[in-house]
Amino acid sequence: MSQQQPPVNEGILFADLYELTMAQLYLRTGMHDRHAQFSAFYRHNPDFGGHQAGYCVTAGLDDLLAWMARAMPAQADLDALGSLANATGGRLFDDAFLDWLGDQGGFPGVRILTPAEGRVIHPNAPFAIVDGPLASAQLLETALLNHLNYPTLIATRATRIKQAARGGSVVDFGMRRGHARGVNAGSRAALIGGLDGTSNTGEALVLGAEPKGTHAHSLVQAFMAAGMDELDAFRAYADTYPDDCLLLLDTVDTLHSGLPNAITVFEELRRAGHRPRGVRLDSGDLAYLAIQVAKELDRAGFEDVPITLSNQLDELTIWQILEQIEDEAPRYDVAPQPLIARLGYGVGTRLLTSHGAPALDGVYKLVALERDDGWAAAIKRSDTVGKATTPGPNRVYRVYDARGMATADLITLADEEPAREAPLRLRHPVERTSRTLEPSDVGGIEPLMEVAWEDGHRTGEPPDLATLRERRHRDEERLDPGVRRLINPHIYHVSLSSALWSLKQGLLTGSTGGDDSVNV
Amino acid sequence: MSQQQPPVNEGILFADLYELTMAQLYLRTGMHDRHAQFSAFYRHNPDFGGHQAGYCVTAGLDDLLAWMARAMPAQADLDALGSLANATGGRLFDDAFLDWLGDQGGFPGVRILTPAEGRVIHPNAPFAIVDGPLASAQLLETALLNHLNYPTLIATRATRIKQAARGGSVVDFGMRRGHARGVNAGSRAALIGGLDGTSNTGEALVLGAEPKGTHAHSLVQAFMAAGMDELDAFRAYADTYPDDCLLLLDTVDTLHSGLPNAITVFEELRRAGHRPRGVRLDSGDLAYLAIQVAKELDRAGFEDVPITLSNQLDELTIWQILEQIEDEAPRYDVAPQPLIARLGYGVGTRLLTSHGAPALDGVYKLVALERDDGWAAAIKRSDTVGKATTPGPNRVYRVYDARGMATADLITLADEEPAREAPLRLRHPVERTSRTLEPSDVGGIEPLMEVAWEDGHRTGEPPDLATLRERRHRDEERLDPGVRRLINPHIYHVSLSSALWSLKQGLLTGSTGGDDSVNV
Repeated sequence: MSQQQPPVNEGILFADLYELTMAQLYLRTGMHDRHAQFSAFYRHNPDFGGHQAGYCVTAGLDDLLAWMARAMPAQADLDALGSLANATGGRLFDDAFLDWLGDQGGFPGVRILTPAEGRVIHPNAPFAIVDGPLASAQLLETALLNHLNYPTLIATRATRIKQAARGGSVVDFGMRRGHARGVNAGSRAALIGGLDGTSNTGEALVLGAEPKGTHAHSLVQAFMAAGMDELDAFRAYADTYPDDCLLLLDTVDTLHSGLPNAITVFEELRRAGHRPRGVRLDSGDLAYLAIQVAKELDRAGFEDVPITLSNQLDELTIWQILEQIEDEAPRYDVAPQPLIARLGYGVGTRLLTSHGAPALDGVYKLVALERDDGWAAAIKRSDTVGKATTPGPNRVYRVYDARGMATADLITLADEEPAREAPLRLRHPVERTSRTLEPSDVGGIEPLMEVAWEDGHRTGEPPDLATLRERRHRDEERLDPGVRRLINPHIYHVSLSSALWSLKQGLLTGSTGGDDSVNV
Repeated sequence: MSQQQPPVNEGILFADLYELTMAQLYLRTGMHDRHAQFSAFYRHNPDFGGHQAGYCVTAGLDDLLAWMARAMPAQADLDALGSLANATGGRLFDDAFLDWLGDQGGFPGVRILTPAEGRVIHPNAPFAIVDGPLASAQLLETALLNHLNYPTLIATRATRIKQAARGGSVVDFGMRRGHARGVNAGSRAALIGGLDGTSNTGEALVLGAEPKGTHAHSLVQAFMAAGMDELDAFRAYADTYPDDCLLLLDTVDTLHSGLPNAITVFEELRRAGHRPRGVRLDSGDLAYLAIQVAKELDRAGFEDVPITLSNQLDELTIWQILEQIEDEAPRYDVAPQPLIARLGYGVGTRLLTSHGAPALDGVYKLVALERDDGWAAAIKRSDTVGKATTPGPNRVYRVYDARGMATADLITLADEEPAREAPLRLRHPVERTSRTLEPSDVGGIEPLMEVAWEDGHRTGEPPDLATLRERRHRDEERLDPGVRRLINPHIYHVSLSSALWSLKQGLLTGSTGGDDSVNV
């Protein structure tokens, strides 16, 4: 795709104003080029009310890096910003600052370290470390959080919905209710999170995926209003798409009209040598209707025709529907497991708007600033110990147990390198407790942070969707099932190294000296 | 701004796939050019859990019309779509369809009627009527809902938050947690809904508004890590922005560090002839802290310095904070009303993600199709009476009482024209009850739907923000206070004309004849 100049609201000024006012202050005071480190992390896994995630799946990095490459400051940006007045009518931003901003294309000097997109991540461990000149790294805050918070939320939700579906195909139908143009990032994240398709045509095509969809109630209504009937509409659909015929049954009456009409058309297709692709149910008691529909399809010899369910679905609703089917199907002489195996799902609003928890609480905190005598850690003193930022600079390692399962994420100082040979001490981030893993308990220690952006460019090619999905899948397999539980999941440990724990305690208690920073 | 060719995921293929598969079917069957009417409406005011809206404010129309003008089908779109395979490896879309789609630039023949952007709207009354060739009008469904659902949700939430603030200034800080690029539409909608500013720099500049913001905790942390302190950071801020100095107090300790340091700097500014602009509190018990901060600012002679509160605010939290201040301030010899009058608010995540109700349930339904003998109304028979679509074609009128207050929205057939001279019968949409207004009870009957798009173009210039805000404000003033109540609002009446009610009942009960449509 050609690199077009983004409009003013999508380029370098896609930022909270305070990033710019702070950057100008840093320029005025000569602090702008001081080497700084910021950490982006989230504090809590999404809690949907009655159920909550036990982990997250990071997504959005590719969009962030593409934005950083595209957001070259243009004259239109500088003119617009230069036009802003302060409270007494003078200029809010002066020429020196606009000159500086004009040179920020590619965020010079900024380096970003992140877990690879699609990896499982956990609260309070950085999902991005930004390292670079203070003003440039500050300038990136809003765009970085915006590009990562929402997609991570949706990739996470998608893994949960897919898990509830017990292997059934799940397709994203959410673009009509999602948040304006944000749905493109949402549909992409849903696919990263494991969904099998999206109805979002343009985004699917950009990603090299196949968009999904067949017809709405309006098709049947149009035929009826034109003086024909549901059967005519189904026949027209089968004529147009003989090898892709999936029919929506509930426009008139699911069991008394949609289903018999669909069977009629499927029989016609079969005689003509085509294989029907499925039916969809979009209202009513989906569990009960799925049982009745399966029974009749079976009777007509369409045991292999999939049944797609849709209508305000999320992980708990899908779970409950499957529970109900297991309980209720035998009463109608329908075997529950084969029925469950032929079910697919369309999920929309509740996925793309993350119903119950529509935001991930990702933040971006200054953790270290370079001084003549080395790095000084930064901490926000007013926070309670539990909320205090982990001082930096940091790195994150994933520790696997002897079975190869992830057992903890370990946050360290940047220059520590945890070794498998020695006992590994994992400090609780707040309490004085710790856990020690003997070398025989440790199956592997994996550095999680990779350089994603350096020297004004992304470090790698954009990943393809298959790579991202495989990466997520591998991480999911190495999560304890308790952590993946849909309700009240087991807590995954995020620990500090001893050196980092001591630094943090020292900063919080002021025991490291009179000033509020410390050399590390 | 130049009209750039949008990328494949933002142009004509910003659509659910089924809009395209249905359009191809209509083309194959020759139904594509039949004149059709679709209605977009929402069924329920947003319910945030424990509190709910009594109305909505429509927003997003300008973005929709701009998208329609910009979404000219390009070769890249047609090539991408043409590459899709069906289940047996053949092409899903044929050349005839791609030719038709290539000619859909400007949605030829489509006319859109809507209430003007910024108007108050109500459930079940159309917020858009789309009239045009069946396939073209169907093609528009996803984009129309996407462009209107989310902004309407946010404009509505903004009015509620602004109402809770009792006239205090409220600024949108939500872009870091909002849904990817959707935040631009959200920030714009927040301003339409009455917010006083946004931190979203680019979007504010595009709208001709002033972006808002000062500094983050990271500014103070950077100074501290550099070996200086909070007072140095505040002084640097005041030096850089002497006439725009608003200081964030809670990086170290609000009452024992931030506040005294701010007062020191404010005194220095005052001596130099500058007026301090405010303080911001972002953590802790905001009501208690606001009282203490006000007391100390007053003591230092800064009675006119505003106090901005932020941190997970929404309408209920603001309401509770103000209640607490009214109760608690006198105990500290602080007068509550002057304190409340100097408060401002930063609202972020809970506004832009509409916490509690992250989606508006707007739908797009076929309501009528033209036949040789006139319009045939369409209805979805499987729906319960309460959920059944109002058959069309329709218009919407707002009925004002003798005081000039809006008393009901009346949905009529397209060719009815309710008159002030005769008694006006308002039918309940579902029940057999009705209400009759005598001419003396009626202060005015206003047609609500205006033509927004016709002949391939928007009918008017893009509205400026001030016009939209004024329009919303006028509608709010004409809403009964009970309907605007933040919790358990009074229900606003949306009624049907007698002719429309009879049509709907006839279609639902089948009493209009053997086929499922009726001439109107």
